[in-house]
Amino acid sequence: GGATDAARLVTDLLSNYSKDVRPVQLWTDPVKVKMDITLHEIVELDNRKQSLTTSIWMRLYWNASNLRWNPEEYGGVNQVSIMADQLWTPDITLFESIKEDTNDRLNLYTCMVRHTGEVAWLLPRIFKTACILYLHAFPWDRQTCNLTFASWSHDASRLEITNGTPEVDLSFYVPNAEWKLLHALILTPTVRFTCCPEEFPSLTYALGLQRKQAYYMMNFVFPVGCISAASILVFVVPAESGEKVSLSVTLLLSSTVFLLVVVDMLPIQSESSPQLGWFCCLVIVFMAISTAGSAVIVQCYYKGQRGHKMPLWLHRVTRHTLARVFCVWTYTCSDSRCSWKPQVVILL
Amino acid sequence: GGATDAARLVTDLLSNYSKDVRPVQLWTDPVKVKMDITLHEIVELDNRKQSLTTSIWMRLYWNASNLRWNPEEYGGVNQVSIMADQLWTPDITLFESIKEDTNDRLNLYTCMVRHTGEVAWLLPRIFKTACILYLHAFPWDRQTCNLTFASWSHDASRLEITNGTPEVDLSFYVPNAEWKLLHALILTPTVRFTCCPEEFPSLTYALGLQRKQAYYMMNFVFPVGCISAASILVFVVPAESGEKVSLSVTLLLSSTVFLLVVVDMLPIQSESSPQLGWFCCLVIVFMAISTAGSAVIVQCYYKGQRGHKMPLWLHRVTRHTLARVFCVWTYTCSDSRCSWKPQVVILL
Amino acid sequence: GGATDAARLVTDLLSNYSKDVRPVQLWTDPVKVKMDITLHEIVELDNRKQSLTTSIWMRLYWNASNLRWNPEEYGGVNQVSIMADQLWTPDITLFESIKEDTNDRLNLYTCMVRHTGEVAWLLPRIFKTACILYLHAFPWDRQTCNLTFASWSHDASRLEITNGTPEVDLSFYVPNAEWKLLHALILTPTVRFTCCPEEFPSLTYALGLQRKQAYYMMNFVFPVGCISAASILVFVVPAESGEKVSLSVTLLLSSTVFLLVVVDMLPIQSESSPQLGWFCCLVIVFMAISTAGSAVIVQCYYKGQRGHKMPLWLHRVTRHTLARVFCVWTYTCSDSRCSWKPQVVILL
Amino acid sequence: GGATDAARLVTDLLSNYSKDVRPVQLWTDPVKVKMDITLHEIVELDNRKQSLTTSIWMRLYWNASNLRWNPEEYGGVNQVSIMADQLWTPDITLFESIKEDTNDRLNLYTCMVRHTGEVAWLLPRIFKTACILYLHAFPWDRQTCNLTFASWSHDASRLEITNGTPEVDLSFYVPNAEWKLLHALILTPTVRFTCCPEEFPSLTYALGLQRKQAYYMMNFVFPVGCISAASILVFVVPAESGEKVSLSVTLLLSSTVFLLVVVDMLPIQSESSPQLGWFCCLVIVFMAISTAGSAVIVQCYYKGQRGHKMPLWLHRVTRHTLARVFCVWTYTCSDSRCSWKPQVVILL
Amino acid sequence: GGATDAARLVTDLLSNYSKDVRPVQLWTDPVKVKMDITLHEIVELDNRKQSLTTSIWMRLYWNASNLRWNPEEYGGVNQVSIMADQLWTPDITLFESIKEDTNDRLNLYTCMVRHTGEVAWLLPRIFKTACILYLHAFPWDRQTCNLTFASWSHDASRLEITNGTPEVDLSFYVPNAEWKLLHALILTPTVRFTCCPEEFPSLTYALGLQRKQAYYMMNFVFPVGCISAASILVFVVPAESGEKVSLSVTLLLSSTVFLLVVVDMLPIQSESSPQLGWFCCLVIVFMAISTAGSAVIVQCYYKGQRGHKMPLWLHRVTRHTLARVFCVWTYTCSDSRCSWKPQVVILL
Repeated sequence: GGATDAARLVTDLLSNYSKDVRPVQLWTDPVKVKMDITLHEIVELDNRKQSLTTSIWMRLYWNASNLRWNPEEYGGVNQVSIMADQLWTPDITLFESIKEDTNDRLNLYTCMVRHTGEVAWLLPRIFKTACILYLHAFPWDRQTCNLTFASWSHDASRLEITNGTPEVDLSFYVPNAEWKLLHALILTPTVRFTCCPEEFPSLTYALGLQRKQAYYMMNFVFPVGCISAASILVFVVPAESGEKVSLSVTLLLSSTVFLLVVVDMLPIQSESSPQLGWFCCLVIVFMAISTAGSAVIVQCYYKGQRGHKMPLWLHRVTRHTLARVFCVWTYTCSDSRCSWKPQVVILL
Repeated sequence: GGATDAARLVTDLLSNYSKDVRPVQLWTDPVKVKMDITLHEIVELDNRKQSLTTSIWMRLYWNASNLRWNPEEYGGVNQVSIMADQLWTPDITLFESIKEDTNDRLNLYTCMVRHTGEVAWLLPRIFKTACILYLHAFPWDRQTCNLTFASWSHDASRLEITNGTPEVDLSFYVPNAEWKLLHALILTPTVRFTCCPEEFPSLTYALGLQRKQAYYMMNFVFPVGCISAASILVFVVPAESGEKVSLSVTLLLSSTVFLLVVVDMLPIQSESSPQLGWFCCLVIVFMAISTAGSAVIVQCYYKGQRGHKMPLWLHRVTRHTLARVFCVWTYTCSDSRCSWKPQVVILL
Repeated sequence: GGATDAARLVTDLLSNYSKDVRPVQLWTDPVKVKMDITLHEIVELDNRKQSLTTSIWMRLYWNASNLRWNPEEYGGVNQVSIMADQLWTPDITLFESIKEDTNDRLNLYTCMVRHTGEVAWLLPRIFKTACILYLHAFPWDRQTCNLTFASWSHDASRLEITNGTPEVDLSFYVPNAEWKLLHALILTPTVRFTCCPEEFPSLTYALGLQRKQAYYMMNFVFPVGCISAASILVFVVPAESGEKVSLSVTLLLSSTVFLLVVVDMLPIQSESSPQLGWFCCLVIVFMAISTAGSAVIVQCYYKGQRGHKMPLWLHRVTRHTLARVFCVWTYTCSDSRCSWKPQVVILL
Repeated sequence: GGATDAARLVTDLLSNYSKDVRPVQLWTDPVKVKMDITLHEIVELDNRKQSLTTSIWMRLYWNASNLRWNPEEYGGVNQVSIMADQLWTPDITLFESIKEDTNDRLNLYTCMVRHTGEVAWLLPRIFKTACILYLHAFPWDRQTCNLTFASWSHDASRLEITNGTPEVDLSFYVPNAEWKLLHALILTPTVRFTCCPEEFPSLTYALGLQRKQAYYMMNFVFPVGCISAASILVFVVPAESGEKVSLSVTLLLSSTVFLLVVVDMLPIQSESSPQLGWFCCLVIVFMAISTAGSAVIVQCYYKGQRGHKMPLWLHRVTRHTLARVFCVWTYTCSDSRCSWKPQVVILL
Repeated sequence: GGATDAARLVTDLLSNYSKDVRPVQLWTDPVKVKMDITLHEIVELDNRKQSLTTSIWMRLYWNASNLRWNPEEYGGVNQVSIMADQLWTPDITLFESIKEDTNDRLNLYTCMVRHTGEVAWLLPRIFKTACILYLHAFPWDRQTCNLTFASWSHDASRLEITNGTPEVDLSFYVPNAEWKLLHALILTPTVRFTCCPEEFPSLTYALGLQRKQAYYMMNFVFPVGCISAASILVFVVPAESGEKVSLSVTLLLSSTVFLLVVVDMLPIQSESSPQLGWFCCLVIVFMAISTAGSAVIVQCYYKGQRGHKMPLWLHRVTRHTLARVFCVWTYTCSDSRCSWKPQVVILL
């Protein structure tokens, strides 16, 4: 049995075959499709566009009643591979897909057909799906992205989809640089559309992902933390140094520059704004307030130099109330005794 | 009735079938197409390109007079699914579409055909449409984007399009991170082209969207507000501190840096410029003026130090006129009485 | 006459039809194609890539001698729509097109064929064309972009193209956010290629566009103007204030930051450099010079403090020559009389 | 033997040919495919997306038992070229591919068929593959990217793939601007999938690449090095100059601006963070600390001016402990002898 | 002779035609293809990706022995246009192409066939090719980009390619905004691959391009030049002004900001680093050194104020050695005589 036997077999198989017809013996029977996937790679999880790009190898198995033969009649050929565009194939669709061009030429791949009618269809595919991210805890967040596969036009009475393996095959998984794969669960929910009363069985792969933090710690958390920590020392610089206001306004500028980095990094998402974003915003607000505060203190100082006295009520507010609130203490050595005393003098 | 019956049916149906011919019994009758959509996701509403990307599931229903059969003749098979490229399908076109490649392979999806001739065509599609944004109130704006579906070549006498459901199905709607869906109305205007006297019925889906503001408040409104508020205190810093000019020019620089963020965020639109953009522009102008003002004041101060007197008219203008305009009051303690007096001295 | 009559008609029409053959009765006759367009939208006019993206609805009309029939023979069917890939269609090409993939599936649209042989082919298309911009007057510039349509392989003796309407249809025009459409002229030049002696008739649509300025005024002209105006006041700040050099160098920095915005906004074009770009460049040069000048003045001042006298020739140059050039006058009050005198002292 | 003979030959060859059938004489035999490649160009190795784009010329050779003829019967025609979409071709797949649209029209290229049945299929292809980068030593790093070719559906018993040449052909290699090609090894591992017991022979091309450093040295290493070196001199500036704090905070700002450059350049990778990134982060942290330190020192100085004494314990810590740690020595000339002494005075 | 004659002709021509067969009379003869091009536009020459995008109109001519007829038999029809996908066409390939999707639907264009068998195939095409740039002299550089066309599978014995015109047709050339076309040479090298002994004739179009400099002068050379020139004056500012260190560090910051512009503009190329890039790097290094120098000078000054003397050896080095090296002279007026003397005092 060589190429001629096989060629005869293919011709015979496809002679009365219609690819529009579900390969079942009884019309009321569903086609039972088994599906399993190999997660090859998480190509990208885009923060801003909220889209997940994955490289997945799909494997679909079903039994086609109209693709059976007796191997002995064909020189022992018990398996042929036929281009998928010549056969009926299940219209398994990824529901979350947001790929713009739906031109996937799946038909380029072959179906392996055994003489018992068992068909195996293996497809390497790149999917682009919507994945809503919850960024409250960014960059310490965990995300779950779902990939829901179901037949597009056949309901449960005509096509059943079940998972072929209890677990997602991860033996070829290439680790992503930014995300750590926590788990890849298989769920089998049943979808019901508003249009139609029928139920559609589906297979959902839930990928649990954890963000790796080193990049964000290095470029974001550490520098912002340091700048905001440094800004507290604005109040330490005395007014007569001629640098008090300069320091605070330059720190304000630094924060603003940093905002450029942050705006590029964070998604335009308002559902669950990242806490770090608000922290960054607060730093700028604090910088602006401390700049204003410095300006006022410097004026007070120079008015004091010119002989103006601080109004009594202001003196009281700052020295007694504020000093206690902000816990500003200075170490003063009057005469013999050195001690820490709460006072606002250092602010000037 | 199994695969063989169904295969025979499909062959019979398509034997004398021409996909160029509208499936009506009387040539003067229109094909009545019912359409309804499921809004799956608003993928993106691009501020700058003014384009809306949506993921929509279309459902088209019509009755094909030339696709009817007696189920009993075909072993009870009362429904088949046939690839759309073999059948006549309505050329429903989205008029606002700006997708560059018009390669959508709609034919990959199947039509479900019942023995009564009823055809159902279900399509998951990604649309990219033009949507003119009115940004006067940015980022507190609401937008309305229209999706107008109509037959491209058949007028009302040949194809009628009506909405299948009174409302857009939102049961599978995935909320967008940046925009909140306010409503999704269905309108049925009739389009009339300048080329031809015929009327074209159409279905228009009007999506009302409201921008979620948290992102813009955090990265834009708050920081700009704080910087501009801080800039008022330029006049508080006394000239002899050696920081008056530095402060104002560094705030000018901060505003300029901020402009980088803004230019990236706002669309190049001039029809309805966002008020916030003008505010941002005004801040820079104000900063430049206050820098100039600081420079003049510093010069006046040092000339005063050197013994030059301020010319009498300038003294009058500042001390009496400007001081009242800008409400600059100082708290002075001359001799025994402390009081607030309007004077320009603090500016120096 | 229903679907069966129409199906018979289509079969008859296409039975001896060859889509490679021009539909003329005498082989020496040209096919007369009438074309008119609806300008739907100017999607984008890219400053940097010098490309224009337009959404246009093309309408082509011609009379096909081999697509005529007697409606009475076909149950009164006097009009059918046939997929364009089955018929001869004129190979009208847009000469300025720079779209990378030439995959436009025009064949997806149908041709409306009347029993008199009149064919109407309506196509919604997105074009991307080269458009050379002249940016001398940016952002107050007007541009003209041409769209030249002509048959790609048929010369005037085989295909004539004429405009169907005297004007471009603008009834569906969606205004562009950045550009105002001034006019859309129709020209009918005749193209002659170096390769061949034949003439090719063409239809050219000349779109006149005017840039809307608000965006550029807001983000570019106003801020740059203010910064450069503020820079003049560098000379007003006295040297002893300890802020003269700081002011000028920070303004230099602001200008540099602004250059970042400008570089992003302007195209890399050198044919006709925008005047505003040179202005921006001049501001930086001026800032650098004023920084240098400030440094020299500060040194002079402190040397004067230490007792060094300004060399006599320099004193003369500045006090007499420069002071008159730059019109630096000061208001001095010596003894009783106050008057404005030209002097350079204020620069120190 | 001219075009007619060749046309007859092609018709004869394809008359009983089925492109779904492997061209072997005995069905249990594998097709022996020899493959060799010419590495034409490394188009891009994207740091951020971790993707490698290569331009490769593939050459596949096999012997088709069903494509043999006697040249004498066909006028001496001993070789024809047949479009690949009409013949069986091995489904060699690149396993690392992450190209989104799998529309490669390989069928556009022809197979050269000799009368002995030898088929040669030459394909120019652009591949986009995942390549995990290890960036610990960035920008002095070396990377290895693998391109694994194997049959997608045929296991070792049905298709054998071997390398045609012992080495990758580099005679047409166009050097990449950013990466130097160290080696291009050919490996022949056997892949075994979890799904199936069969082995799949494969060909792996391992490209060893070394980053050229000049760009990164110029724009990254040198400037960052200089800024961080300059920052040490913050402690040299005395407190009374009124520039100590300004200097440190402006250097902090410079580092922050530099972070913008770095964030653009480095990939978001956390597996093996680049050491340079951490260095850059450390510089910012150090700047923030030195700003804080400057502020404290300036306060101490001015308190000293006002008569406050430094607390004894602080004096001891700085003058004895810290001075030794940081090796701050000054050159002092007391009376007659000048000598270097460890002391903290210079910090003030 | 109308449409019916032409239809009969086309049917007859294609009846025994095989598009896999080279149209020659003797099988050992090569097909002689003449090619000429019209360079329509240089769409883009990307500095960073080192890719050239060109819009070219290709014209291919050859004589097909199997496409000849007697015009008199077909009513005088002496020329027909046949869709290219029905005919044999030469597989002319652009060797430098790096376009990712090789889907060019060349078959959409028609071949003009004359009754003598002469075929003309005219194609408008957009090419994207690799072009290695040598940027040593950037932005005053000239580049040469090659476009090599050759048959992909036919060697010299089967397909000969010659240039139809001695020069590239530039009559429709649209000038590029960034690059000036110096010349467009035609070369006819013969390529020999390592795989095979056969020679492949080829046509190479060498485009000589010169960068237009105005943009780079305006945005890059002038500003960087001014900033670096201004930086020399750091040494002019006296230490007691309290601005010496501020000036140098702010200029350092300006340079760093400028680096952002440069990094965006220059390609990541290390083969031939642009001299301007190194200049820009040197400016930053110089700024850092001058900042450090300023810091030291300021310390020296204030130590001098406090009574510390400069160590004798340092005094000698600066006043005698450095002063001569850097040619720092001051104009001093001691007693009666004013003269320029070399001294380092001004640095303090």
